[in-house]
Amino acid sequence: MVVTCKREVSTRGQGDTHDITDLVSAAVGESTCAAGIATVFIVGSTAAVTTIEFEPGAVADLNRSLESIAPRDADYRHHLRWGDDNGSSHVRAALLGPSITVPFTDRSPDLGTWQQIMLLEFDTRGREREVIVQIVGE
Amino acid sequence: MVVTCKREVSTRGQGDTHDITDLVSAAVGESTCAAGIATVFIVGSTAAVTTIEFEPGAVADLNRSLESIAPRDADYRHHLRWGDDNGSSHVRAALLGPSITVPFTDRSPDLGTWQQIMLLEFDTRGREREVIVQIVGE
Amino acid sequence: MVVTCKREVSTRGQGDTHDITDLVSAAVGESTCAAGIATVFIVGSTAAVTTIEFEPGAVADLNRSLESIAPRDADYRHHLRWGDDNGSSHVRAALLGPSITVPFTDRSPDLGTWQQIMLLEFDTRGREREVIVQIVGE
Repeated sequence: MVVTCKREVSTRGQGDTHDITDLVSAAVGESTCAAGIATVFIVGSTAAVTTIEFEPGAVADLNRSLESIAPRDADYRHHLRWGDDNGSSHVRAALLGPSITVPFTDRSPDLGTWQQIMLLEFDTRGREREVIVQIVGE
Repeated sequence: MVVTCKREVSTRGQGDTHDITDLVSAAVGESTCAAGIATVFIVGSTAAVTTIEFEPGAVADLNRSLESIAPRDADYRHHLRWGDDNGSSHVRAALLGPSITVPFTDRSPDLGTWQQIMLLEFDTRGREREVIVQIVGE
Repeated sequence: MVVTCKREVSTRGQGDTHDITDLVSAAVGESTCAAGIATVFIVGSTAAVTTIEFEPGAVADLNRSLESIAPRDADYRHHLRWGDDNGSSHVRAALLGPSITVPFTDRSPDLGTWQQIMLLEFDTRGREREVIVQIVGE
């Protein structure tokens, strides 16, 4: 069985993060599937999804590391093309990737106690983000 | 229902990238599934798959960032083992990962307008790459 | 059909890696599914899964690259919060991600000859890790 859940998340620009674990858990619970996989996918090329212990320190550490890999104020060829200022956003998003797939059993995602599903906004302005939770299960 | 699509892509060596969105969309369309997930997987340990706004500037920015993370001309222990020259290829491929999973509805992948599926070649020579699109849907 | 396989792997702390290809192949073989996808998921926020040519040189090169991205002995805000010493573990795990999804056909994962599935321990102490292989196939 395939069940699709599409949700909007409002973000505030680069470095903004959202714990979307409850959103995913609710989608799994409402799917009536007992076991399967939930693919969490972010639509767009300047945001990403991963898991983390969602506390402000760890989130800040990750953002700092991404700033060192792809500094916001560096020169990007993407800027030359469109007059955009979000070259760092594209690099960070491509490195992390748009999707994770989480198994679930007993109608609940099999996450660790300190493991949350996180949406990362990398764009330089706030966005209305579409998150898709595609559930395949039985 | 499971539908397997295997395709070959010829690459020209490190830094070469291919927009494989059409390949994935065609596989989804031909599967006769209306909704589900498409796992895009690259066979081999010196290439990767992610999504990006596929324009030359953003692609060049990503390759530059990967060059700073794993420079092609640095010393690698992998070189000592086999006499290979592709240590940077292995590091980049492991960081990005071999697979993404993309949801589809209405027989079409749920990508953003500026979000394309990209194959990245990291090996130091051209390769015939096998891309697998494994579709699970209904 | 959905088949769940949960396994424990004992690790020895940051930099320890395990080739879990045989574990995944066995789960696929025992599932009685001929074709489908196997999601390999690590429970917890200080470890990750990817693919690599699993030989000591390439594994060491990857660990060295991760040490340069998120040095173990740097200052992390996560340390201030809990008195932990594993800020680098969280950053590395979030960058690589907790899951990969591998297609299988003919009851066997479609990996390259030199492409193995690897569990990476990033925590600063050894752990008992739970690996979930969630198989969706037919």
